[in-house]
Amino acid sequence: MKAPIIVPAAKLAERVQQKLTEAGADAPSSAATVRALMHGSLHGVDSHGVRLVGYYDGPLRSGEINGRPQVRLRKTAAATAMLDGDNGLGHHTGYEAMKAAVELARDSGIGAVGATGSSHYGAAGAYALAAAEAGMIGFATTNAESLVTLFGGREAFHGTNPLAVAAPVPGEKPWLMDMATSAIPFNRVLLYRSLGHPLPEAIAVDASGNPVRDPADATMLMPMGGADYGFKGAALAGVATLFSAILTGATLDHDLVSLGKSETAKPSNLGHFFIAIDPARFAGVTEMAAGMRRYLDALRASPPREGFPPPMAPGDREWQVVEQRLRDGIPVDQDTAQILGF
Amino acid sequence: MKAPIIVPAAKLAERVQQKLTEAGADAPSSAATVRALMHGSLHGVDSHGVRLVGYYDGPLRSGEINGRPQVRLRKTAAATAMLDGDNGLGHHTGYEAMKAAVELARDSGIGAVGATGSSHYGAAGAYALAAAEAGMIGFATTNAESLVTLFGGREAFHGTNPLAVAAPVPGEKPWLMDMATSAIPFNRVLLYRSLGHPLPEAIAVDASGNPVRDPADATMLMPMGGADYGFKGAALAGVATLFSAILTGATLDHDLVSLGKSETAKPSNLGHFFIAIDPARFAGVTEMAAGMRRYLDALRASPPREGFPPPMAPGDREWQVVEQRLRDGIPVDQDTAQILGF
Repeated sequence: MKAPIIVPAAKLAERVQQKLTEAGADAPSSAATVRALMHGSLHGVDSHGVRLVGYYDGPLRSGEINGRPQVRLRKTAAATAMLDGDNGLGHHTGYEAMKAAVELARDSGIGAVGATGSSHYGAAGAYALAAAEAGMIGFATTNAESLVTLFGGREAFHGTNPLAVAAPVPGEKPWLMDMATSAIPFNRVLLYRSLGHPLPEAIAVDASGNPVRDPADATMLMPMGGADYGFKGAALAGVATLFSAILTGATLDHDLVSLGKSETAKPSNLGHFFIAIDPARFAGVTEMAAGMRRYLDALRASPPREGFPPPMAPGDREWQVVEQRLRDGIPVDQDTAQILGF
Repeated sequence: MKAPIIVPAAKLAERVQQKLTEAGADAPSSAATVRALMHGSLHGVDSHGVRLVGYYDGPLRSGEINGRPQVRLRKTAAATAMLDGDNGLGHHTGYEAMKAAVELARDSGIGAVGATGSSHYGAAGAYALAAAEAGMIGFATTNAESLVTLFGGREAFHGTNPLAVAAPVPGEKPWLMDMATSAIPFNRVLLYRSLGHPLPEAIAVDASGNPVRDPADATMLMPMGGADYGFKGAALAGVATLFSAILTGATLDHDLVSLGKSETAKPSNLGHFFIAIDPARFAGVTEMAAGMRRYLDALRASPPREGFPPPMAPGDREWQVVEQRLRDGIPVDQDTAQILGF
């Protein structure tokens, strides 16, 4: 692997915006996509960062993704809505849906929005974070095309189906969990391949569904929980599918086709699901802030095992990366750098 | 271990009710507790079944649990409420809170209820199931006293903090996930001790926080995800604490004392959190039922790895146990049998 080049965040965002516009994305769509991809790149989640711009380019040009969608929000009750993304970029659908959930929660205490007619939306954490930045607890999930076996299964069934939760923290960046329900993301397998390192146990399988250590043999992932407790990861992946596709009426994991791999360039009708919760309607903003403070102080003061660093809360490490990358620039792999014209 | 005795479900429920009444529980409290404990015992989750009646007996008699609570529901917005359990049995708090969430969801599409002033409520799945039986998707969680290390930690920080989700399935029992966010429940460690078997890897630790295989050395649990990915389980445990205690203003895991272990018999102010979601306000009841049917048919038809049984959906195995135990009776351990007067 050639070394990545380092690009300042503002410059990188500008080029991504430009590239998306060239491919046919309108201003709201490209702005949302830049925001979501920069979330990934700034937080160190490079698999869900600006490298995805190359993945969206062809589908935008072929019409598999609609670059000029008319997103339609349909309120269905005091606290719920459905949002039709009109087959646009998933990031635009995602931010619009979470914005609607926050508005519903402002009035009704909690708001839930099911999105359909969407496409790949990058990191689920970007949308949970948007709710936390508005003072709410946010939950975001999506399903994805099959890549993960069931517990004891030999075929890809669920996608890497992420679950993301974010919550405001007084005086610091939000608590932020964003996890795949597979043992690891598939691009981590690709990284092991490039490095020539054996895989950890019980995270990936070969075409027969048997766990493998050689990354060259890995074709599918195992669910979180590994050889003994993978039924837990499979159940959590099912929660993502339940909310994102079954409740919303969107496409199930095993019926989804990867972007750019559909022979007909037919939109995939991907679904997502979003919840925002207003702390003011529970213990109250002040009381919740105090509880969060006590919780995080105790967590960070909890003593580590010998040889381990002090425990961290979800997001702590990522927010350190954000600070460092805002200061020093963002590493961009050579392929993506070329696509972006660096 | 002496063999358990087998008792018909109706007879067992009657004795549990009687025992709770003798200890001071009023009719609504004992009815809810019988329902929740029978849920555990019928589903094969014996750790959260009728054996708990012995655990509640002392606290009910000492007043640590209020046997005659005046549960108070306070609606805070169109879709949200807080419920004060008046330090009663957690099962009564739990069913009342989920009932309120279902009613809110009927009007507003989604309903969320935060409960405080509660106590141990048995299996979280019992409450998620109550929502599914009312045609809704249900989510229930609670925090619990510290017993699980952080990822790389050496002290108990989170409780075994369960996450439960249930959803209606046309023509069959609900989809039902109910999982601890620890690698395993602690009573599984006790079972390995009784059997003299070594523990699986990366599920329990000794007093220094180091993973152990000898169940006699295990004093705490590791979070789901084990040695390499335990940060995921720890984050999910944090989600349970966030919703159940931080959002509601109830007691944090590390400030909770086990029932019957408080020197002052002071109630613990345990919190829980409940969500109900009405499918009618998303894709619609018929469309969701069709999606669930397609999803479950595909899952159960997915081929197994060599040497594994066909994949199952969450709850499939437990519903088989329910059927068998309703037919053949419920195994009750000798200690509990004695408490119940069998």
